Amino acid sequence: MSTLPLLDTLLLGWREEIEAALARVLAELPGPASTVRQAMRHAVLGGGKRLRPLLTLAVCRACGGRTEEALVPAAALELVHAYSLVHDDLPAMDDDALRRGRPTVHVAFGEAAAILAGDALLTLAFELLATHPEGAGAAPRRAEAVATVARAAGASGMVGGQQADLEAERTAAGSVDPGHLRWIHVHKTGALLGAAAEIGALHAGWEAARREPLARYGCALGLAFQIADDILDATASREALGKTPGKDARAGKATYPLLFGLEESRRMAEEQMEAALAELRAAGVADDGGVLDSLTRAAVRRQA
Amino acid sequence: MSTLPLLDTLLLGWREEIEAALARVLAELPGPASTVRQAMRHAVLGGGKRLRPLLTLAVCRACGGRTEEALVPAAALELVHAYSLVHDDLPAMDDDALRRGRPTVHVAFGEAAAILAGDALLTLAFELLATHPEGAGAAPRRAEAVATVARAAGASGMVGGQQADLEAERTAAGSVDPGHLRWIHVHKTGALLGAAAEIGALHAGWEAARREPLARYGCALGLAFQIADDILDATASREALGKTPGKDARAGKATYPLLFGLEESRRMAEEQMEAALAELRAAGVADDGGVLDSLTRAAVRRQA
Repeated sequence: MSTLPLLDTLLLGWREEIEAALARVLAELPGPASTVRQAMRHAVLGGGKRLRPLLTLAVCRACGGRTEEALVPAAALELVHAYSLVHDDLPAMDDDALRRGRPTVHVAFGEAAAILAGDALLTLAFELLATHPEGAGAAPRRAEAVATVARAAGASGMVGGQQADLEAERTAAGSVDPGHLRWIHVHKTGALLGAAAEIGALHAGWEAARREPLARYGCALGLAFQIADDILDATASREALGKTPGKDARAGKATYPLLFGLEESRRMAEEQMEAALAELRAAGVADDGGVLDSLTRAAVRRQA
Repeated sequence: MSTLPLLDTLLLGWREEIEAALARVLAELPGPASTVRQAMRHAVLGGGKRLRPLLTLAVCRACGGRTEEALVPAAALELVHAYSLVHDDLPAMDDDALRRGRPTVHVAFGEAAAILAGDALLTLAFELLATHPEGAGAAPRRAEAVATVARAAGASGMVGGQQADLEAERTAAGSVDPGHLRWIHVHKTGALLGAAAEIGALHAGWEAARREPLARYGCALGLAFQIADDILDATASREALGKTPGKDARAGKATYPLLFGLEESRRMAEEQMEAALAELRAAGVADDGGVLDSLTRAAVRRQA
């Protein structure tokens, strides 16, 4: 009999299932292309908060779905996130050597393998979304899942946000328009979290119109999460973060702390978190035990 | 009344439809992410043989399908091909400055934008495969198309081939095993052409088992095409190719001409082309007017 509260039991169990699913879909690949698979495993299996897949599973449950049907799609969301980190860390992009407390993929395997491993992670994510859950009846949901994640991850979503982020570095950081900074965060981080939430509802059988508030909830959570990330980059240690802190300032990046100061940024993160929770309540899910509520608060109020 | 033979009329018409579809799906994207869309357009809209989408349409027709249902999926195959060229041309990979007679994407837009444009092209390809042709009845075909292309393009296919190709450069070129060189070409080039053929059959409504010989046909064509490419790299001019010739030798790459000499390589390309045509005949398609037959021969016997 567990003495843990429902929330912790659920999250611990899901985390284990997500790790197992990721290890399974990234099994060693013998033969001439083994290096690219090793680089993919390095990128994904070295830890991480697993926020996107946890969000997918928690939303699926709150929408009355069977979380086992959403498990591999949830893992696919983590692969998309991991690919974006591998490419963002490249010398031509953010040029970072440390991620999750370990060398980044291009440091460990070289730039070419890092580019290819990112490409292969993105490709594998779509293969998994297109094939899970199995069964002829789930085919429309699988096609819709691919389209939803692709829209969120592409030029009109995450990739567009990353491009705008890089371009903003060429502008004097203090002069970046706050609305533009919000646009960058919403696209770079919010869009994929919105898709993670929507995929959970999709595999619970919810129709498009009913999924929209959940996509908005995930996106709002993503913005709050990113403001918290900006604050941690400015305040936390390398050990706590597992990545290089203070990078935003050195790169001349516009961030919430730079534009608004730390105190005001903390207030804005809380405000944005409350906005996300309001979207969640409006979505009409059954968040038994307050799992999504707690996940949302923990994602924004984290220390690393 | 056209005086052109059926073959030319069909191919010319398809080519126009493919160009129009590509221009449509890559319409300008106003706003902060406009650069990445410009880079995507530069990568795709600057010419090219369009072999993959032509193959998809020709197979669809020969399988009794409606080519208009396969048009956007065919265009998606070209986007996957274009993304692979953008990333392959990067300084960390093949480091090429010229493609289709114009500066490569990283030369024209910078490395970061080239990485992101490649990512966005791949993502857009899966979005298009997941959403076209429209209609609830086509959803299982759409999900299957995504899975088929993803398997061909990922670590077990095209990306794996590219990784093995880069690793082979570190081996003394003359000492590369011919079987390994074949493995590289089959994965780097054959897999995606196999998927292009299979998608044509899929959208003609052919079941998985009946599609297999067509996938093998496309893959065999891909190998013949790549041997021809090796020969052209060793013999053609920059003007004819629209890209830098003689690159393979300078990069120390193992190629068919290096391993077997030019004459034997030409014989092997013809032999491999005949193997592809045998697969095609075994597939039991109705290749009225010999369209696929001609397309196959032209792809291998080209001068650029």
